[in-house]
Amino acid sequence: MSLSTDQISPARMADTTAEDLERIIAATVSAAGQLAAQSPQQRAELLRTIAGVLEASTEELVTMAAAETHLPEARLRGELTRTTFQLELFAEEVLRGHEVRIDAADPEWPMGPRPDLRRTMIPLGPVLVFAASNFPFAFSVPGGDTASAMAAGCPVIVKVHRGHPVLSIRVDELIQEALDEVGAPEGTFALIHGTQAGIDALGDPRIQAGAFTGSISGGRALFDVAQRRPQPIPFFGELGSNNPVFVTQRAAQDRAQEIAAGFMTAVTGSAGQLCTKPGTLFVPAPSGISEEISHGSLPGAAPLLTTSMEEAFIAGVGNLVHEGVVRVLTGTVPSPDVGASPLVARTSLAEFMEHPELREEQFGPYSLVVEYEDEADLLAAAESFEGQLTGTIHGAEDDQPHDLVEILVRKCGRLLWNAWPTGVSVTPAQHHGGPYPASTAVQTTSVGMAAMDRFLRPVTFQGFPEAMLPAELRQGSDHPVRRG
Amino acid sequence: MSLSTDQISPARMADTTAEDLERIIAATVSAAGQLAAQSPQQRAELLRTIAGVLEASTEELVTMAAAETHLPEARLRGELTRTTFQLELFAEEVLRGHEVRIDAADPEWPMGPRPDLRRTMIPLGPVLVFAASNFPFAFSVPGGDTASAMAAGCPVIVKVHRGHPVLSIRVDELIQEALDEVGAPEGTFALIHGTQAGIDALGDPRIQAGAFTGSISGGRALFDVAQRRPQPIPFFGELGSNNPVFVTQRAAQDRAQEIAAGFMTAVTGSAGQLCTKPGTLFVPAPSGISEEISHGSLPGAAPLLTTSMEEAFIAGVGNLVHEGVVRVLTGTVPSPDVGASPLVARTSLAEFMEHPELREEQFGPYSLVVEYEDEADLLAAAESFEGQLTGTIHGAEDDQPHDLVEILVRKCGRLLWNAWPTGVSVTPAQHHGGPYPASTAVQTTSVGMAAMDRFLRPVTFQGFPEAMLPAELRQGSDHPVRRG
Repeated sequence: MSLSTDQISPARMADTTAEDLERIIAATVSAAGQLAAQSPQQRAELLRTIAGVLEASTEELVTMAAAETHLPEARLRGELTRTTFQLELFAEEVLRGHEVRIDAADPEWPMGPRPDLRRTMIPLGPVLVFAASNFPFAFSVPGGDTASAMAAGCPVIVKVHRGHPVLSIRVDELIQEALDEVGAPEGTFALIHGTQAGIDALGDPRIQAGAFTGSISGGRALFDVAQRRPQPIPFFGELGSNNPVFVTQRAAQDRAQEIAAGFMTAVTGSAGQLCTKPGTLFVPAPSGISEEISHGSLPGAAPLLTTSMEEAFIAGVGNLVHEGVVRVLTGTVPSPDVGASPLVARTSLAEFMEHPELREEQFGPYSLVVEYEDEADLLAAAESFEGQLTGTIHGAEDDQPHDLVEILVRKCGRLLWNAWPTGVSVTPAQHHGGPYPASTAVQTTSVGMAAMDRFLRPVTFQGFPEAMLPAELRQGSDHPVRRG
Repeated sequence: MSLSTDQISPARMADTTAEDLERIIAATVSAAGQLAAQSPQQRAELLRTIAGVLEASTEELVTMAAAETHLPEARLRGELTRTTFQLELFAEEVLRGHEVRIDAADPEWPMGPRPDLRRTMIPLGPVLVFAASNFPFAFSVPGGDTASAMAAGCPVIVKVHRGHPVLSIRVDELIQEALDEVGAPEGTFALIHGTQAGIDALGDPRIQAGAFTGSISGGRALFDVAQRRPQPIPFFGELGSNNPVFVTQRAAQDRAQEIAAGFMTAVTGSAGQLCTKPGTLFVPAPSGISEEISHGSLPGAAPLLTTSMEEAFIAGVGNLVHEGVVRVLTGTVPSPDVGASPLVARTSLAEFMEHPELREEQFGPYSLVVEYEDEADLLAAAESFEGQLTGTIHGAEDDQPHDLVEILVRKCGRLLWNAWPTGVSVTPAQHHGGPYPASTAVQTTSVGMAAMDRFLRPVTFQGFPEAMLPAELRQGSDHPVRRG
């Protein structure tokens, strides 16, 4: 089925022209002022209405997404649920209010009389979101970046991922329906297509923040564009992660089979195309875990999200095997002939320490089992990683690997114990970020309720008359706020 | 009096060598782990002890600072009070606790069962602070950046400003005394000297954040160094601001004399060397304000903080007058002969709109009165500014300049009504920042209690055993926290 010609004219997928881009950005500027003036109730209604129209179109959208991304429908259905749930959760967050601090005037303030100071948060302004390939809903057009930026009151332009343009255009139509329904200002949301349009938009002085999920090379190039502008802007990029998992001696003794099975599931789910796929598993040698894995069965080769990602996967993993840096533990070496076949390789800790390229992410159904002799050597292994989204320990009840935790806290955004890092739950306390290159903005998260704060900034009003203050700063205001 | 030869050997002011820099940075790394493990009580004690030793040395420090900076002793005494008060306020903030979010495991969570997730904040790691010239205490060695980074649990290296090296070395001695007294780890705090040492330190992979107060050119160059590293890091630069003030027709009718007097004080205080000096005053033409100012008396020329700043001021202001872009309203045109004499110039709104260079900051005792015919034209004038630390309106009781406020909210970090932007109070709700170039990090403040958050980042623990969790995340913890 060729959705692109059946349902969406090719012209709509063409790269956005400079004239169209100008019109689109100009519209967001006019929308920005109107959105900033909206009440929390209006913002919440906007988010909930988008969630509603998407949910009502589930079957149509899941079919479209499956055709373009090769991801299984069950997984896509779950992802769409996550996406609409996330929109609703941000609606709740908006109604909970943002942080406000109010200092009454104080003539006795120890450093000298202080004036009346009231601090609130305002939206940053027009936001440019670069959609990801691997979550066509949750990190794409209607995903977390879009939802959190809109929750903050910012207009959003999404640069479509070329992996699923038809779905993107259809989702945009549905979002526009929802925006019409709530009477949102023109320019609240728009799509653009093409690499150059994305770069041009990011360099435009009217854009006030960027958000991105994808590769280190692509994300870094865009980060550099955002930082080299005359006015640098915040750029929230989630770039890449190896997500190492450390299994203690005792855990391996207690739960070899369970750990091996959990690992295989985490590595092969969504054909390994998850930001939090465990890329390295450190196990004792000898232990039953490698053996369990070697006996495990892996699914056959399946197409990856895009042709270029598949080529990169085949070349990257193929090279590691052919150069003898790693050996096959189970599965088939991916190649142009067999395709992106799942593979788990093995190596020793000593070899791992000598090959920095083994710490790079291979995006697809591949992972590396590293066998260690001495548990104490795990500290140097952990220390050898760059910034990570996640770091995981599988331990036994009596294990207290404080030194390993201390290193992982320094390296990672999320630490897990006896769990697998895939399946990032959307909750208030979730953190999906970490030191570079996990994120270009180490203090922020792209999943969880704190994601909204990325698109707000503080403004303080000094000595303002009540009538000129934003509603949430007035005396006796019943606006929802969080006290800072 | 030559303090440098009397009290501090010139060798101690020499540029830091590569060997010394290596030793200093290595020590901060070892300190970082120990500081991160400290309790809020220990951090608070450290800050309070530093405040105590500085306060006990007030007379010595004020004398030293006056000799090096040419600032009046009364002003310096007030600034030192502000500095020690700020350290104590951050101690209180530490004891109040940072933000924590705890989500219990929930098998019924709508997007699928969620695990136990607990989010806390950890220190970023070693911080490099570039001291400013204009506040030898409050934005220098023991200033807000140092205090807030230490409050967050980060070791600090301060790159000394060449405008007051003797004072800097003496303050460091006192800080080291305080650190010894509380048993802080070696490497908690250090000074470095010289531009190249500062750049090298900022590029060092072990440094995890930078903070700066100073010029746009210097700050942007350092921002670029921080962003172009293999691992970019947060760089909190407060660069420059014109701080425009808008006087409505009615306010000018009601309070011409008062406004003129307040303006003159704000422009000439600390010889105009304040980040928040009002650089432009928009007044109706004709109004009594220009006339009041023209009759006002200004102080004589006084030396500025450094020779190079004085030269830049004389050249910058001299050019504007000599090229006929502005005309003298009161005061003497600064020149190599008369020195950095205070000057207030005037121009029309039409001319102002044609000369973008009039919106640049002139650091020193100079400001520009812009006379407008039609109050509605103030909107375009406000829109013509880049990001600002502050924007001020002088209005009458019946004025409701909503459109002007809407523009200034978009451009500024702090908005004032019938007040002057100088004299930035240190309070929880204070915000000292704004869109670039006011700040390189628009979402953060360098004054006020939120400054501490600049040096923290989130980490989430998933499914961790109680015994392995940070104290503030354990069940029934009595650690102080703010709920997110």
